[in-house]
Amino acid sequence: MDNFIFQNPVKLIMGKGMIERLSKEIPHESRILITFGGGSVKRNGVYTQVKNALKDYKCVEFWGIEPNPKVETLREAVKLGKENDVNFVLAVGGGSVIDGSKLISAALLTDTDPWNLVLAGKRVRETVPLGTVLTLPATGSEMNNGAVISSKVTEEKFGFYSNFPKFSILDPEVTFTLPTYQVACGLSDTFVHVMEQYLTTTRQSRIMDRWAEGILQTLIEIAPQIKANQKDYNLMADFMLSATMALNGFISMGVSQDWATHMIGHEITALTGLTHGHTLAIILPATLRVLKDQKADKLVQYGERVWGIKKGSIDERIEQAIVNTEEFFRSLGLTTRLSEEKISEDVIEEVKKRFDARHVAYGENENVTGEIAFNILKTAFK
Amino acid sequence: MDNFIFQNPVKLIMGKGMIERLSKEIPHESRILITFGGGSVKRNGVYTQVKNALKDYKCVEFWGIEPNPKVETLREAVKLGKENDVNFVLAVGGGSVIDGSKLISAALLTDTDPWNLVLAGKRVRETVPLGTVLTLPATGSEMNNGAVISSKVTEEKFGFYSNFPKFSILDPEVTFTLPTYQVACGLSDTFVHVMEQYLTTTRQSRIMDRWAEGILQTLIEIAPQIKANQKDYNLMADFMLSATMALNGFISMGVSQDWATHMIGHEITALTGLTHGHTLAIILPATLRVLKDQKADKLVQYGERVWGIKKGSIDERIEQAIVNTEEFFRSLGLTTRLSEEKISEDVIEEVKKRFDARHVAYGENENVTGEIAFNILKTAFK
Repeated sequence: MDNFIFQNPVKLIMGKGMIERLSKEIPHESRILITFGGGSVKRNGVYTQVKNALKDYKCVEFWGIEPNPKVETLREAVKLGKENDVNFVLAVGGGSVIDGSKLISAALLTDTDPWNLVLAGKRVRETVPLGTVLTLPATGSEMNNGAVISSKVTEEKFGFYSNFPKFSILDPEVTFTLPTYQVACGLSDTFVHVMEQYLTTTRQSRIMDRWAEGILQTLIEIAPQIKANQKDYNLMADFMLSATMALNGFISMGVSQDWATHMIGHEITALTGLTHGHTLAIILPATLRVLKDQKADKLVQYGERVWGIKKGSIDERIEQAIVNTEEFFRSLGLTTRLSEEKISEDVIEEVKKRFDARHVAYGENENVTGEIAFNILKTAFK
Repeated sequence: MDNFIFQNPVKLIMGKGMIERLSKEIPHESRILITFGGGSVKRNGVYTQVKNALKDYKCVEFWGIEPNPKVETLREAVKLGKENDVNFVLAVGGGSVIDGSKLISAALLTDTDPWNLVLAGKRVRETVPLGTVLTLPATGSEMNNGAVISSKVTEEKFGFYSNFPKFSILDPEVTFTLPTYQVACGLSDTFVHVMEQYLTTTRQSRIMDRWAEGILQTLIEIAPQIKANQKDYNLMADFMLSATMALNGFISMGVSQDWATHMIGHEITALTGLTHGHTLAIILPATLRVLKDQKADKLVQYGERVWGIKKGSIDERIEQAIVNTEEFFRSLGLTTRLSEEKISEDVIEEVKKRFDARHVAYGENENVTGEIAFNILKTAFK
């Protein structure tokens, strides 16, 4: 086990009807910038619940934070927030709205352009306090201090780190009416978040392994049941809690992490617009195939504990574990090959070029160079 | 899943050599009351590491917080702290030193007698900031806001709640020289903490179940290995991390809890002085036997997932799960019957009397009355 420092101060407020607690959590003199994505919160009743809870506050609303939040949009939100001298940001939406709001919270307190805050690559600790009402379980942004921000102009997508939200409210009932594709991408995103922290070197921590496997087992158990009944409260509560627990530091204490699949996936989204969770369903099986020698021991453990694969040679067991992983994504209704999404080989070349130009190598062993990424994408092609 | 609010702000600092970080974590103008138990920290080098890290601070030392910390002792620490106008408390020790220091931190800011703070049964939120250096994995006190405090005079033992420690430093190397009996009691305490949050009604949360089972599986895996080599760093790190994760709220989100075993165990300790973790090893199997109808579904799940018991009738599987649990405790070197510890039947009568006098009923269904506790203790007798 590596030395580590863990701290996660987010107040997690979970359950039906909990949105009305907003007035207990936000100081009463606050001037709030409420940030939203599209209009789904008006259709599912979340908007009304939020407005009722905040009827005694001074609020200004910013609408239109898009999937893979664009800095060009967020600049407008920062402008609105500064004009109204806000001192609290409330993000109401999924991971994109929350990610974007983290950058807004930071940019409100500086004259530096938001994209420069992202490019600087430094954690920003001076931010306007942020709270969230989550509407889509997927990214875990509601309980971590990270964000991923894109630029329309440069077709780039980078990580950004600032403060944790003060609180996050998770009402499983808001997920009952989510589109099937968003649920599938949320399950995929959650699954791969766990794999990025788990599918590395073995024997680092028994308990962290067990907890990662516990989330994977939960996802595999609930995914078909969610397909059958997306309005089952306990089922959606476990989905929501799993997504939050998958990326809040609880399963990464003292262990190495990978994130190569994510780095490649981000490029695919930046270049083609394909939804993040979907890119991961395509990239992860290919990453495991290309790196299967390096990850052999953990793939065997993963196959045995998560999928019950106990027979066959090591090679057969590894292959079966990867096949099961890909079939899991397909069972969600997602494609798992680039060609199925009509993504051309030019995109693969471009990803390689970008990795090469940045002289980067990702993954737990920092060996996923442009060339290895190219191999992974070729493997993910058809 | 029940509605819940979760927040745990403790900064967990884990790994070898981390004690030297004390000077980064404690504000430099602090006047520190350092609290200790007996002299073991002088023999294992922890005392020297702490003193070196704090050589530029104004410190006053209080020695002698005993196992099952006594309010009579803690009053002396409060007096010393007030005389020296301290504004930070650093607990260096196991759960008893940390528990006691939580009460000290609270009592430093008031003229109310510490025992009255305990008896009031209210969470105290005004406290002097507390940090901890853990020397014995067991109670989880390093990452929660609870404590258990005893009175010599009244032979009573009650819970007390205040603030979370600001930080806790866990260096697994400090456990290498712990006495075998303390390690056994620490493993037992950790195991039963998990069971109190897990062995209840089924189908409340799949992920919380998996995480609880993950800690139990870890403990069962590491216990015999620790016996063979208590100086294996990764092994002791997993023990230490498991103990902390077993009682910090991470496995109790949205699920019911029991704690009947603990309530009975506390009385046994109060009346006989038997070490806390040891009382639990004696009481838990008996609690499961007496309540096996009520807990049947979860006992079957526990047997299957934690012990691999998949064959036999429901009754046979439940019996096997309880037998395995008791054998686990015995494998640690602990006795599991009251008679083995020469505890008389008078003690059993006295526990019943105390429960009856308080008109209490513990456990997830609030049905463990004095009479049920009596049955449990009779079952635990021989």
